[in-house]
Amino acid sequence: MKRALLCLAFIATALPAKTPAPDVRAWRHAHERQLLEDFSAFVAMPNVATTLADVDRNAAFLSGQLQARGFTTRLLRASEGTPATVYGERRTPGAKRTVLFYAHYDGQPIGQKGWTSKPFEPVVRAGDQIVDWRSASGPLNPDWRIYGRGTGDDKASVQAMLSALDALKARGIKPSVNIKIIWEGEEEQGSPHLAEIVRANRDLLKADLLIMGDGPMHQSGKQMINFGNRGITGFRMTVYGPNRPLHDGHYGSWVPSPSVMMARLIASMRDDDGKILIPGIYDDVAPLTAADRDALAALPPIEDDLRRQFAIGRTLTERLANGYLQPTFNVRAIHVGDEGPDAANAIATEATASFDIRLVPNQKPARVREQVERHLAGQGWFVVHATPDAATRLAHPKIVRVDWDEGSSEAVKTPLDTPAAGAVAQSIGRTVGYPVLKLPISGGSSGIADVVNALDVPMVGVSIANFDDNQHARNENLRLGNLWDGIEVYAGLLADMNW
Amino acid sequence: MKRALLCLAFIATALPAKTPAPDVRAWRHAHERQLLEDFSAFVAMPNVATTLADVDRNAAFLSGQLQARGFTTRLLRASEGTPATVYGERRTPGAKRTVLFYAHYDGQPIGQKGWTSKPFEPVVRAGDQIVDWRSASGPLNPDWRIYGRGTGDDKASVQAMLSALDALKARGIKPSVNIKIIWEGEEEQGSPHLAEIVRANRDLLKADLLIMGDGPMHQSGKQMINFGNRGITGFRMTVYGPNRPLHDGHYGSWVPSPSVMMARLIASMRDDDGKILIPGIYDDVAPLTAADRDALAALPPIEDDLRRQFAIGRTLTERLANGYLQPTFNVRAIHVGDEGPDAANAIATEATASFDIRLVPNQKPARVREQVERHLAGQGWFVVHATPDAATRLAHPKIVRVDWDEGSSEAVKTPLDTPAAGAVAQSIGRTVGYPVLKLPISGGSSGIADVVNALDVPMVGVSIANFDDNQHARNENLRLGNLWDGIEVYAGLLADMNW
Repeated sequence: MKRALLCLAFIATALPAKTPAPDVRAWRHAHERQLLEDFSAFVAMPNVATTLADVDRNAAFLSGQLQARGFTTRLLRASEGTPATVYGERRTPGAKRTVLFYAHYDGQPIGQKGWTSKPFEPVVRAGDQIVDWRSASGPLNPDWRIYGRGTGDDKASVQAMLSALDALKARGIKPSVNIKIIWEGEEEQGSPHLAEIVRANRDLLKADLLIMGDGPMHQSGKQMINFGNRGITGFRMTVYGPNRPLHDGHYGSWVPSPSVMMARLIASMRDDDGKILIPGIYDDVAPLTAADRDALAALPPIEDDLRRQFAIGRTLTERLANGYLQPTFNVRAIHVGDEGPDAANAIATEATASFDIRLVPNQKPARVREQVERHLAGQGWFVVHATPDAATRLAHPKIVRVDWDEGSSEAVKTPLDTPAAGAVAQSIGRTVGYPVLKLPISGGSSGIADVVNALDVPMVGVSIANFDDNQHARNENLRLGNLWDGIEVYAGLLADMNW
Repeated sequence: MKRALLCLAFIATALPAKTPAPDVRAWRHAHERQLLEDFSAFVAMPNVATTLADVDRNAAFLSGQLQARGFTTRLLRASEGTPATVYGERRTPGAKRTVLFYAHYDGQPIGQKGWTSKPFEPVVRAGDQIVDWRSASGPLNPDWRIYGRGTGDDKASVQAMLSALDALKARGIKPSVNIKIIWEGEEEQGSPHLAEIVRANRDLLKADLLIMGDGPMHQSGKQMINFGNRGITGFRMTVYGPNRPLHDGHYGSWVPSPSVMMARLIASMRDDDGKILIPGIYDDVAPLTAADRDALAALPPIEDDLRRQFAIGRTLTERLANGYLQPTFNVRAIHVGDEGPDAANAIATEATASFDIRLVPNQKPARVREQVERHLAGQGWFVVHATPDAATRLAHPKIVRVDWDEGSSEAVKTPLDTPAAGAVAQSIGRTVGYPVLKLPISGGSSGIADVVNALDVPMVGVSIANFDDNQHARNENLRLGNLWDGIEVYAGLLADMNW
């Protein structure tokens, strides 16, 4: 034990850390326009995973990009007809450590309304104004943003890696680690096949550290790393009124209202302050460690700024991240009846709503699903999992159909004092010139839990996208400066990590 | 006083009641195809009042129809650019009483989805099958139905009147009353101008009885009259989340959810059994009279049948009509976020819902509106009536925007023992051969309250449409037999009423 410690100390001394950041920056200054051109072409490739041909086109493109940079590649699929995870590997002669880099190249569904420009025809804007950046002279303004689905979540991480490899090569800087890459193609669908793919390729993916490149940076604009992600399980509920729409004047005092039933059902599940009212849901929540508490307390206060930016008159907790180690119950959507010019004074036939629950370490999706259904039953609801027939509807006063989302994932969290995690923190600290912020767990989710568990590997999340990138929403964007900085961060992770 | 009573008795004896029904039926048998052709052409004229040109075309058509039957007509408008109420008048030499017949020719908005055939391209169906009735031989099956917006609500009443006039003329039967007609063009918009039109034309519209031809028949298939309508006031509520959609993983534990707030707000306004939870809303409700109670008790029990037809496992009250003399709070629609392929794990920027409250005698819309807003304030909401700006949103933890519908109406109700009302009941009883059912008040609403108040006239509602006509919903329809019977009922009201 003592020898190992000495040995580590020796390596750290023998290879004095030298960040490649200045070299990478100089290279980037000379290549900004080409970089933006390349990224625009990448974003222009539609990437919603429900359209297989689209994600396949991205996967083929990325394989080619990796091969051109000396990687051996494979497309890993759970089965024909499912999106591919792009795998790439490049050994570094003499390197002792292997780092597995994860990112995803698929994007959230684009939504129907409110995109100022088309989601797959990227444009650059200065504020609200489109910029003709190809004709502009001088360096590109780092505060300009590129708009399109996937810009921030998560093609930015993929592009940063590709460009970091280019920069290092151009400046003759050798990576310090063996590089493995997995770029997933259905993260935004809940990673339904990632676990299967990883379990089937355990040896291929073996590594000493997993770097998860996803999610937004800290709202202060400072670099931040995280040590895990929350899990998620989602579902849709349908409650039933009459089997055809009825005039609410004639029937409203006699026929139950699906709108009211859905509203009251939701009210039974969460209060106005965000507390989940489903019995037992907090039972398995792990207590905070002292390191978690310290890291949370060290995060710069950005809450007043955010509140003003979002124009909200109250918040559910004082500090933004304090709720991340608790489960969160989100109502994604509620729909019943027509509004506007099509509004009718009618009782609708059904009300639908959809939900996701963000899970924390120790919570099992299956147990949470049980708790939800037990709660529904406890509220007097007869729970079904398919459309109830007339006999069923007649036999039960209150019927709710529950459809669980196909993908679900557990939370995952690496202890903050793990050595590999320390190496990431130090590398990024040297790249950016200040101590990196540490978020004990990201508020978002990913299928990464299954990867971490299958590979038994420490994990650190590295984010490069601006926090206000509208990820998962319309007008998703990436600040150009965040891409530039991201390239330096990735170059550091490739060439300046030792443990 | 005694003389007057004797005189009335004498008239009743001197003109022994004789229903024109057999004559009308014989005439109808000979003209069924032409009647259905005429009605189809009438339904084919789009009649949603938000498109003025459409309702104007209906109004011009109906004026022509009345003129062709010897009426003097006028188009009554509150102002240019608003839908016309069609007025027609035909005096009957020797008649002592004047009856004002009301109906409306506009229809509910058609809604976007679920129409099996186009709403303004009427078709006839036997069950689910379209019938080529023009080529069919023999009498038309009275159980066939014609589908289209306005068939049941309320072009049926207009057509029945026109055809009754034709039938009486063809068989040489003289009406017993002077006839006045008002056919409104914006009832389904909440009759925003009817009161103004009636007040401006009080002398023109003066009558001894108002017959309100609207609404569906009793579910038992028996003829039923009503003595008034409930009032209505409607509104839309908007509650606000962040000013742009946010990732619910990163912000869901900190940013208030408009979905949850709307659900809890609705839950604060009505319980699962239909009881309204807004303080004071029952204060002004008039108690039931003994006559009301007797009439309600005499209605045939149809609840078990209806429950099976609608496939509902419970009802809010035992008897359908027992709730009509209480206000009803209906949630027409709730909308927030995207569902299905566009669903995103995001916190939406706002949630909207729309509502109508059915009012009973003594309730004033203005007072109910006050009660609703006071309830919202009591629940901690800051009530606004326009989109709040950022400063307002920041200054108040919970903001709800309330937009009251333009049209509202009071309930109206004629005492059940009024002589003119008795004459209607007797006429219809003779036409159909059994005692007509009496509904103390219709569950639906209309602007008729203002007419009744302005003209100080007793009112009886006469319904001819099948109760399952899908009024206010997609696939609105009218059973052909109901149109045939309706013509006989109207002919009776024209030629067989004495008091």
